[in-house]
Amino acid sequence: MIYAVGIGPGNRETMTYEAMSAFEESDVIVGYKTYIDLVKDLIKDKEVVSNGMKQEVDRVKKAIEISKTGKTVSVISSGDAGVYGMAGLILELSEDEEVRVISGVTASTAAAAVLGAPLMHDFCHISLSDLLTSLDLIYKRVALASEGDFVICIYNPRSKGRPDYLKDAFKIMKIHKSGSTPVGIVKNACRENQEVHICTIDTIDYETVDMLSIVIVGNSSTYIKNNKIITKRGYETKY
Amino acid sequence: MIYAVGIGPGNRETMTYEAMSAFEESDVIVGYKTYIDLVKDLIKDKEVVSNGMKQEVDRVKKAIEISKTGKTVSVISSGDAGVYGMAGLILELSEDEEVRVISGVTASTAAAAVLGAPLMHDFCHISLSDLLTSLDLIYKRVALASEGDFVICIYNPRSKGRPDYLKDAFKIMKIHKSGSTPVGIVKNACRENQEVHICTIDTIDYETVDMLSIVIVGNSSTYIKNNKIITKRGYETKY
Repeated sequence: MIYAVGIGPGNRETMTYEAMSAFEESDVIVGYKTYIDLVKDLIKDKEVVSNGMKQEVDRVKKAIEISKTGKTVSVISSGDAGVYGMAGLILELSEDEEVRVISGVTASTAAAAVLGAPLMHDFCHISLSDLLTSLDLIYKRVALASEGDFVICIYNPRSKGRPDYLKDAFKIMKIHKSGSTPVGIVKNACRENQEVHICTIDTIDYETVDMLSIVIVGNSSTYIKNNKIITKRGYETKY
Repeated sequence: MIYAVGIGPGNRETMTYEAMSAFEESDVIVGYKTYIDLVKDLIKDKEVVSNGMKQEVDRVKKAIEISKTGKTVSVISSGDAGVYGMAGLILELSEDEEVRVISGVTASTAAAAVLGAPLMHDFCHISLSDLLTSLDLIYKRVALASEGDFVICIYNPRSKGRPDYLKDAFKIMKIHKSGSTPVGIVKNACRENQEVHICTIDTIDYETVDMLSIVIVGNSSTYIKNNKIITKRGYETKY
């Protein structure tokens, strides 16, 4: 049995009961070492197999191997295992092993809760990482999502290897979105060193954004009140 | 103090520890009666204020009134309180009350976990309810999201009052998405009477979809394996 477990944004409080049950049932916990560290207090009595970034395929192969010996394995993802997480690769590479995906609070909605309520209306998720996706397609999505007045949640917004993608994405957004559109940046959402920045498309400081940040860009109904970002659902025009 | 609490898709297992703590700290639980029923075993010793659908504004006003008397109030949403949930309205209508949004597993990712791993790549959420949004804008978003090859999660896909919106949305999707694109329908995700249908854009039976369903439409990399829907992230071309 393999559980693809989403541990949520990072502290025990934001985990689900189901994720904890999966750990309890598991003989072995497999994961990227940064995420293993986030739950190390919860898996003290378990065998742990961890490795580094970009070793996802290797990690899943190991989990499948262990499961073939009859052991129960949890492969952990931060956030939801099914959102840019490990669930897909496990299902792709497994043969007749039983696989169960355990949802968690995904990074965008955890960040949204910290910022206020930016995701009250139609929204999309775009990852700016071009490791597995062409940059052309990424920017095309940014353009179309902006044209559709979606709230946009940006995953993997900025890293040392790609310092300017976010700036370029914002240039594209500005074709359709006003410069005064609220923007929220949450670094390390729900973790010890959480940082929050509230700004606009025009006033964003790209240097405050790193790989561990989620950036949420509002739609035309988004506003800032008491330092919280709120996207109006439209009740005021209806009721 | 007002907590905007996301209870997740519907059973205790998929709730977070934080949601449970909010209930424990609360004197009063306020919610739509269907959602109150989902957690009734967890709030037995609490005062409960519930009302019906489309009474969101009234519900929030009541919660704010109660909070002004010094009581701690939890206002519940299914899924994540910040995703088409009550968090926005609470922040819009509150004055100097302290408000905290408690995230939960949102309906799309809960449904995705049941279906396999359809959300491995950029995706968006579109609600087909035109109570608060014009149908033109909804269909425009469906068209742009399809053109951008997003995986699309459809909330509020179909009700008695709007039996044909989903069919019309699928017609629009077909301009850009292949008829063989996998589609997953999950009704009552993670609740007692959960139902799952896996089909394609061409083979969907609209009658299997109702108000309590989430519909997830794949992108050009989505396929079906062992009755699970998987969207490839792109590892196979990279590593």
